[in-house]
Amino acid sequence: MTKNGRPDEDGLIARYFRPLATAPGADRLLDDAASYNPPEGFEIVLTTDAVVAGVHFFPEDPPDAVARKALRVNLSDLAAKGAEPVGYLLTIALTEDWSEDWLESFCEGLAADQEDFGVALYGGDTVRTPGPLLISVTAFGIAPKGHVPRRTKAVPGQKLYVTGTIGDAALGLKIRLDGTLAKRWGLSTGEAEHLLDRYLLPEPRLKAAELMAEFATASMDISDGLAGDLGRMCSASDVGAVLDAGLVPLSDPAAKAVEEDPSALATILTGGDDYEVLAAIEPERAADFEEAARLIDLDVTQIGIVTQPFTGRVRVERFGQPLVLDRLAFRHF
Amino acid sequence: MTKNGRPDEDGLIARYFRPLATAPGADRLLDDAASYNPPEGFEIVLTTDAVVAGVHFFPEDPPDAVARKALRVNLSDLAAKGAEPVGYLLTIALTEDWSEDWLESFCEGLAADQEDFGVALYGGDTVRTPGPLLISVTAFGIAPKGHVPRRTKAVPGQKLYVTGTIGDAALGLKIRLDGTLAKRWGLSTGEAEHLLDRYLLPEPRLKAAELMAEFATASMDISDGLAGDLGRMCSASDVGAVLDAGLVPLSDPAAKAVEEDPSALATILTGGDDYEVLAAIEPERAADFEEAARLIDLDVTQIGIVTQPFTGRVRVERFGQPLVLDRLAFRHF
Repeated sequence: MTKNGRPDEDGLIARYFRPLATAPGADRLLDDAASYNPPEGFEIVLTTDAVVAGVHFFPEDPPDAVARKALRVNLSDLAAKGAEPVGYLLTIALTEDWSEDWLESFCEGLAADQEDFGVALYGGDTVRTPGPLLISVTAFGIAPKGHVPRRTKAVPGQKLYVTGTIGDAALGLKIRLDGTLAKRWGLSTGEAEHLLDRYLLPEPRLKAAELMAEFATASMDISDGLAGDLGRMCSASDVGAVLDAGLVPLSDPAAKAVEEDPSALATILTGGDDYEVLAAIEPERAADFEEAARLIDLDVTQIGIVTQPFTGRVRVERFGQPLVLDRLAFRHF
Repeated sequence: MTKNGRPDEDGLIARYFRPLATAPGADRLLDDAASYNPPEGFEIVLTTDAVVAGVHFFPEDPPDAVARKALRVNLSDLAAKGAEPVGYLLTIALTEDWSEDWLESFCEGLAADQEDFGVALYGGDTVRTPGPLLISVTAFGIAPKGHVPRRTKAVPGQKLYVTGTIGDAALGLKIRLDGTLAKRWGLSTGEAEHLLDRYLLPEPRLKAAELMAEFATASMDISDGLAGDLGRMCSASDVGAVLDAGLVPLSDPAAKAVEEDPSALATILTGGDDYEVLAAIEPERAADFEEAARLIDLDVTQIGIVTQPFTGRVRVERFGQPLVLDRLAFRHF
C-alpha cells in the first residue's frame, strides 16, 4: 500500500487486473509477457488504438463506459479485418488523483465486455502521468490464413457496403455538446439517448468478421467519418468511389434530425465514432454477401461503388447531384 | 498539412512511420490492423510497456534515445521469455508543441534499433495529449512451443543467474541527478559516461533468449531493481531466495563507486533500469548453461539460490551476513 492508502502497482494489478487475465497464456499477469498459440490455419491480426481523456472521451464519462470504448474501438478494427478477437494488452496512464472506485468500475466494464466478446486480458502496463488519463489497448485476434481483407484491395466496379447505421455517434456528440439541440431536432428523450449511447459506447460488429473474411476484398472500420474513411480506402487502393448519401442507412433519430435540419447530413457523413464496417464486394458476390448477412441478422446496406481513380477520390452524391462537404473526416488527432 | 505547417495524422504516418513498417503484414500502415503468420512449432509472446516523459525518461533526452529505450524495454521482456522479437506496435501521445525535428530523430532511433534487433513496426496510433509525451510499445515475438520460461516456475534448490552487470543504470541516474557525485565517487569521465549511457539506453539481452528457452524454468527481465524483481519471482513461484550481494556482477565503474561509497550497493541492488535477465536454473544443468552462455559470449553470473518460501521472500547477504535494504525495488509507478 502507498501512503495514501491506495495499492501500489503490484497490489493494483493483483486486485483489479488479475481477475481479467483468464487465459492460461496470461499466467495471471504474474509475468511480464504472455504467450498465445494460434490454431492451425489461422494468422494473427494485431491492432492498437489509444484514447485520451478530454480528446476521445469526456473525463466525466462513466469509467466502465470509458473502458469498454477503449476496448471496443480495437475489437471493431479486428472485426473489419475478418478476425475473431482473442485478447488484449492494456496500458493505462493514471492521473495523480486516481481513485479505487474509478478503477473498480473501469475493470467492471472490461469484465463485462470480456464476457460479451469472448476476449481476455493478456498483459499490460500501469504508469502514472501528470497529464490526462490515457488508455492504450493492443488487441489481437485470429483470421483464416490469407483471408484478411485489406484497405488496399478495393477494385473499380465493386460495390461498397456498410454495416448498421451511420452518423448516430456524431449526432450524439453534437447533442452532448449542445444542450438544446435534441429539442431543436424534435427528438424524444429516447431518441436523443439512442444517439448519445452510440457515442458513449460503440458496438463493434463482431458478427461481420466472418463475412469480411469470406466476401470482402477490402474493408475497414469507420472511426473517423464515412466519407473520409472511404477516401482513405480509395487512396490506399488507388481507386475512386461514388458515395450516394441517399443510400446511407440512418437510424430513425438520425433521419428525424436530417429532416429537421438538413445540415445534420454533413455531420452524419463526416463525423466520427461510427465503428461500423465498410466493405468492398465484387458485384457478382453481392447477392450472396447480402444473403449471408441476412442469415446472421447483420444489417448491411450498399452505399456506393468503387470507380477508377480521380482527383479527390470520393464523390458524394444525393439525388444524382454532387454534395459538397466542408471536410471529409473528423480528426481525433 | 495542418495550419501550423506540420503534417496531419495521415501525413505524419506516411512521412515518419511508413518507412519503419517493413514487414508485409504491416501493409505499409495503410490499414488499421496488421497480420502475422507464426512459423510452425512456435508460439507468440506478447508484452507491453509504456514510458512517460518526466517519469521514465527526461524530457530533454535525445529523441532517438527515448525511442530506442521505449522499444528496448519491451525487447528485454521478450528476451527474458526466450522469444525472438518479430515486431511491435507503437502508441505515441504527442504534446501540442511536438516538432518534426523531434519526430524525425525519434524515428531514426527506431530505424536503427529495427536494424540492430531484426524487428519491424506493425502498427500504431498517434494521439494528442495536453499532458506529457507518452510512448507505449507492444512487442511480440516467437518462442519454441512450450518453452516459454515463466516467473512462476522457480523451484527451491535452483541456482539464480543474472546476465551482464547490475546497477549501472541506477548509478547512472544518480549521477545524472547529482552533478558532483561522479567526482565524489572518483570516477573518470569515461566511467561516469558508461553509467549514464546504461541509464539512457539499455541493452536488451537478445542473445539470452535462446538460452532461456532451453535452460531456464523461471526467468524475467530486471527492470525495477534486482532485489525487488527477485522478490516478485519468488512471490509468483511461492518460493524464497538468498541473494549474495558479494556475487552480484559489477562493472568497473560500479565497483569503484561501491568502494568509495558503500551505500551505493543498495542503489545497485534495488535501483531500476538494469534490463538484464534473471534466471532460475536446475543445479544439474548449471554447468551446461554456463558453457552455452560462454559459447555465445554472454556473461552470466550466479548470484544466489532459490529456497523454500519464508516471510519476506528474499534474504540479501554479504560475507554470509544479512544485508538490510530500505526498500527492495524502484517503483516507476
